[in-house]
Amino acid sequence: MQKVYIKDLSQYVDQTVSLKGWLYNKRSSGKVKFVILRDGTGLLQCVVFKGNVTPEAFEAADKLGQESSLEITGKIKIESRAPGGYEMDVTDLKLIAESVDYPITPKEHGVEFLMDKRHLWLRSQRQVAILKIRHRIVKAIRDFFDERDFTLMDAPIITPSACEGTSTLFATDYFDLGKAYLTQSGQLYAEAGAMALGKVYSFGPTFRAEKSKTRRHLTEFWMVEPEVAFNDLNDDMDLAEEFLEYIVQSVLKDRAEELRILERDTTKLEAVKRPFPRISYDEAVEILHKNGIDFEYGNDLGGTDETVVSNQFDRPVMVHRYPSEVKAFYMKRDPENPKLALAVDVLAPEGYGEIIGGSQREDNLDLLLERIEQHQLPQEAFEWYLDLRRFGSVPHSGFGLGIERTVAWICGLEHVRETIPFARMIYRNTP
Amino acid sequence: MQKVYIKDLSQYVDQTVSLKGWLYNKRSSGKVKFVILRDGTGLLQCVVFKGNVTPEAFEAADKLGQESSLEITGKIKIESRAPGGYEMDVTDLKLIAESVDYPITPKEHGVEFLMDKRHLWLRSQRQVAILKIRHRIVKAIRDFFDERDFTLMDAPIITPSACEGTSTLFATDYFDLGKAYLTQSGQLYAEAGAMALGKVYSFGPTFRAEKSKTRRHLTEFWMVEPEVAFNDLNDDMDLAEEFLEYIVQSVLKDRAEELRILERDTTKLEAVKRPFPRISYDEAVEILHKNGIDFEYGNDLGGTDETVVSNQFDRPVMVHRYPSEVKAFYMKRDPENPKLALAVDVLAPEGYGEIIGGSQREDNLDLLLERIEQHQLPQEAFEWYLDLRRFGSVPHSGFGLGIERTVAWICGLEHVRETIPFARMIYRNTP
Repeated sequence: MQKVYIKDLSQYVDQTVSLKGWLYNKRSSGKVKFVILRDGTGLLQCVVFKGNVTPEAFEAADKLGQESSLEITGKIKIESRAPGGYEMDVTDLKLIAESVDYPITPKEHGVEFLMDKRHLWLRSQRQVAILKIRHRIVKAIRDFFDERDFTLMDAPIITPSACEGTSTLFATDYFDLGKAYLTQSGQLYAEAGAMALGKVYSFGPTFRAEKSKTRRHLTEFWMVEPEVAFNDLNDDMDLAEEFLEYIVQSVLKDRAEELRILERDTTKLEAVKRPFPRISYDEAVEILHKNGIDFEYGNDLGGTDETVVSNQFDRPVMVHRYPSEVKAFYMKRDPENPKLALAVDVLAPEGYGEIIGGSQREDNLDLLLERIEQHQLPQEAFEWYLDLRRFGSVPHSGFGLGIERTVAWICGLEHVRETIPFARMIYRNTP
Repeated sequence: MQKVYIKDLSQYVDQTVSLKGWLYNKRSSGKVKFVILRDGTGLLQCVVFKGNVTPEAFEAADKLGQESSLEITGKIKIESRAPGGYEMDVTDLKLIAESVDYPITPKEHGVEFLMDKRHLWLRSQRQVAILKIRHRIVKAIRDFFDERDFTLMDAPIITPSACEGTSTLFATDYFDLGKAYLTQSGQLYAEAGAMALGKVYSFGPTFRAEKSKTRRHLTEFWMVEPEVAFNDLNDDMDLAEEFLEYIVQSVLKDRAEELRILERDTTKLEAVKRPFPRISYDEAVEILHKNGIDFEYGNDLGGTDETVVSNQFDRPVMVHRYPSEVKAFYMKRDPENPKLALAVDVLAPEGYGEIIGGSQREDNLDLLLERIEQHQLPQEAFEWYLDLRRFGSVPHSGFGLGIERTVAWICGLEHVRETIPFARMIYRNTP
């Protein structure tokens, strides 16, 4: 027998179907009980009239605890006032398994309590909506690159050397090979991939053992990193804006109901259309100064600075050409001003901060060697990376998009902890 | 200017285009030089006649080292004898960057040397073909679940406790919370997801610090794990066979050229159609005994045993109902014979071994508690998992598919080390 799901009920109007799921909520009004069933695809109001079911089933409808699992049978009717637009006239109700004293009730709970019960909290309508939007974002990301002939290039998670110091890295013993470290970025590997395949993206978890306890930081987060041979910084910005527009418009198109559940102001998302403003770091500093921010030229933008800059625009803003001092060693210098790096950060609107960081990469072997020395990095660890410049070096660029910050922005969430099924933060690695 | 890629040349016949890429190979015949260009999307034979280009360009075509990067311009012609079916009549050739003494030459190299140069080895036609098939497999996996309304549920990589002993786990210090461990499977978390969303899949890297130095083992490998509420073991097998057929047929349809490059016998893959044979463990043991294998009833199947069983069939075979002793604590017992677990392993044909392991899960709280005690597991670490049985438990099942073994099977590779961009094995975590 074909399983029936709540989201497909429009095909079953005036038919009798059996649904399996969990009791989300209930209320009673004398001889009629209302059972709200959830099955992961939606909610359905099931109406139990005393005369229509056995006395046992009617009593069950009364006594069942929240999250009891049920099989419930009845006729589907159109009912515009019900959530989802349908209602079931129940003819039978069978308990599958009880749920006594379910810990998450409709009353308010503290966040720490909910995070302790994350395995159950995921069942709430709000968390289901967030996870479905997260999924749609991930699918949009993959579709975008797949449709444009990028090849997926999974970068390794376990990496051999602590290239930029061990202070923000998770370490593990690796057999007889000494310490190994969890990756912070797949970029350097994606560069090797771009030289083999032209256009690649890596997509996987990345790790940062940073002691940042903010609403934007997780120790474990997912990142997608495209890298394209023969792309310069402008191509990189073209790719980033087309990419972000595609993600946001895909979610708007296919996840309207979930955005409604989250009470997201979608007019803010509808504005996310190309072209995005492109301003230089110098122009960003001007904006800060005009807004009375005491910002010292040469520093990197902090969280508040990002918010002030992004508040000037109704869509993501691309800030390019940062002082090379505050940017990574592998970024190419601007030929017109070698104090600047050919970097770009994309700041989300509404104060959601940096969601993309990218750059054109240094493709000159000698300059890269110089930079490695200046940054006091161990050249030996980079020999393989330097080979990419020794053997047919080409201009290339790429960027990284953080998934959880993107989910937070699109869903309109205060804190990234709700953007991933089981968040990892400095004070939490359970459940 | 729109970039032109080799794979799109059918649109540019009799037009003059510029291509950027790397010198894959070359040969000379007096006044004509043949330069094979690669750009990640294919190979193109470029013909350089002495009179058609500047003397500098002609000399360059002669002297360029393998993997030099080039921009090459000329008219595209149909040429059925050329790889890909097109040829370029070169009018200009510009060097972008040299490549002197490229270490991987057409001669044979040892595997360890090639693995040391993996960042360059990826550029070979064979490795490009494998990565493109890997990508197509990953895409088929995601499409399959997305089209069937599964929700993606990323399981955490960093997990709090060493549930089944620490001997095969990678450990890391986690701030003030003590040791944490890299996940071996997202299944338990996917079960929580199935209770929230009905049908979910987790897809990410998993880790095993096992000292197995075989051609089937990596320490870091990717796994996809669907989990479905209200599915029993039969549903699980239905899902697994539909899934494997979908993956194999997708690759056959879209990656014929890459399979040809790998000299894969595709008749073997064409046979991968539903229904797959389903045999019980008892029947598998009979097959072993009939084939003269000295196999003791009650043991798990080893690599050789798997090969003998799978060689009886022309498509994947599903072996179900194993002795519960050799299977994990969370598997449900067969109500008709409690000595058996409702487990299924899917063995790939041609000796590629187990690619799927799955089961119906124990949904009874008391039996699960009993099992945790028998296996001497720390109950406290499983309290959250037990909650899934305390609050509206339902029958459910799922499985895990290992990506690298699937890639090895479909590509017809001897060893899993070539199935992933940067393989991690007990004696290798570089580059």
